[in-house]
Amino acid sequence: MIAVVLLSGGLDSYTAAASAKADGFELAALTIRYGQRHSAELASAQRVAAALGVERRLELGIDLRGIGGSALTSDAPVPRDRRLSVDEIPSTYVPARNTIFLSLALGWAEVLEARDIVIGVNALDYSGYPDCRPEFVRAFERLASLGTRAGVEGACFRVHTPLITMSKADIIRRGQSLGLDYGLTHSCYDPGPGGQPCGHCDSCLLRAKGFSEAGLTDPLLSR
Amino acid sequence: MIAVVLLSGGLDSYTAAASAKADGFELAALTIRYGQRHSAELASAQRVAAALGVERRLELGIDLRGIGGSALTSDAPVPRDRRLSVDEIPSTYVPARNTIFLSLALGWAEVLEARDIVIGVNALDYSGYPDCRPEFVRAFERLASLGTRAGVEGACFRVHTPLITMSKADIIRRGQSLGLDYGLTHSCYDPGPGGQPCGHCDSCLLRAKGFSEAGLTDPLLSR
Repeated sequence: MIAVVLLSGGLDSYTAAASAKADGFELAALTIRYGQRHSAELASAQRVAAALGVERRLELGIDLRGIGGSALTSDAPVPRDRRLSVDEIPSTYVPARNTIFLSLALGWAEVLEARDIVIGVNALDYSGYPDCRPEFVRAFERLASLGTRAGVEGACFRVHTPLITMSKADIIRRGQSLGLDYGLTHSCYDPGPGGQPCGHCDSCLLRAKGFSEAGLTDPLLSR
Repeated sequence: MIAVVLLSGGLDSYTAAASAKADGFELAALTIRYGQRHSAELASAQRVAAALGVERRLELGIDLRGIGGSALTSDAPVPRDRRLSVDEIPSTYVPARNTIFLSLALGWAEVLEARDIVIGVNALDYSGYPDCRPEFVRAFERLASLGTRAGVEGACFRVHTPLITMSKADIIRRGQSLGLDYGLTHSCYDPGPGGQPCGHCDSCLLRAKGFSEAGLTDPLLSR
């Protein structure tokens, strides 16, 4: 069975994709070039897809800089050394991003006759983004069945979130058990010119916390 | 109050936008360049926006030809002289199109601090598309509030569908009462090289039926 997986090139989407593969899905990997500041992740998505043996891969461009409203899609600064909290939604929140991404995944799933979509959202060690919560995911599944030809014909779409209740350390441990090479991934929101992680954005901080709690060394930092 | 209106350049979205304007909304017009076969509609969207005095206008590109699965986004032929029926979803259905478009509208609405989105969907004289039905629209509203920062902060998004229960003739009568010039619009799915309507696709047939039932002449045909 085919599953469309949203593959950003980050640690979470790599692990989510690998989990779905371990569960027996044939992966169709969708990567979105949305004008993200950290477009270095696009090359990671390509590497990760190759490492996973993905044969169907689609990169779609949609310039969310036209919409703006986020430090990731504008020239507003990315917060540094923020105290991580899920109670406050940071300026790296991209308006409606996962709704947009899941919609595109849904369109492709319908064409591939897939009923499964995989997204690496995480509601525990995350940045407080509203579109990473289970209730959002369930509402999207409902919408998917109402808004598609396949749904009208009786299909149920399922959005799989294999990481949703995991801590970042759990995710990394899971990846290790699956033999993943996190050296292929990119997490930083505000990388240097050569793609090197800043070490100060939410994404770097969460990644560092995760490796530390898992008692492992981040291969990106040991190079 | 600002409303984001999805403006394709067709007759329906023009009328929906004008209705919202008549209701007192300040319009922000979003047009999507999605690789549609009938890209002639993009110029119409520009004309219609100007006629409505729209000051905020955004055209976003997303190449849905990468996804395919529709006669509008592939080289598959557009059905001609089909018996119009809402019981069968035709090959011009674009997988998840309104979900994708509403998601983009939602992202822009959040940035503009708008809570209102307007879409010219129609569940009576339409082509049987699942993502034009009231239950789909309600499910999207629910998703919008769950998946956005604004929603978490208590905002409710409303998707206005001023045409949803109207026949095409009703829509045209409404447009006439609002003083709209339908000569600015484009409806045909499969236009000739100069943008001229084919007269045989669903969209042309529905338009012709609407003008005929309203006892009016289509200004596009009387040129």
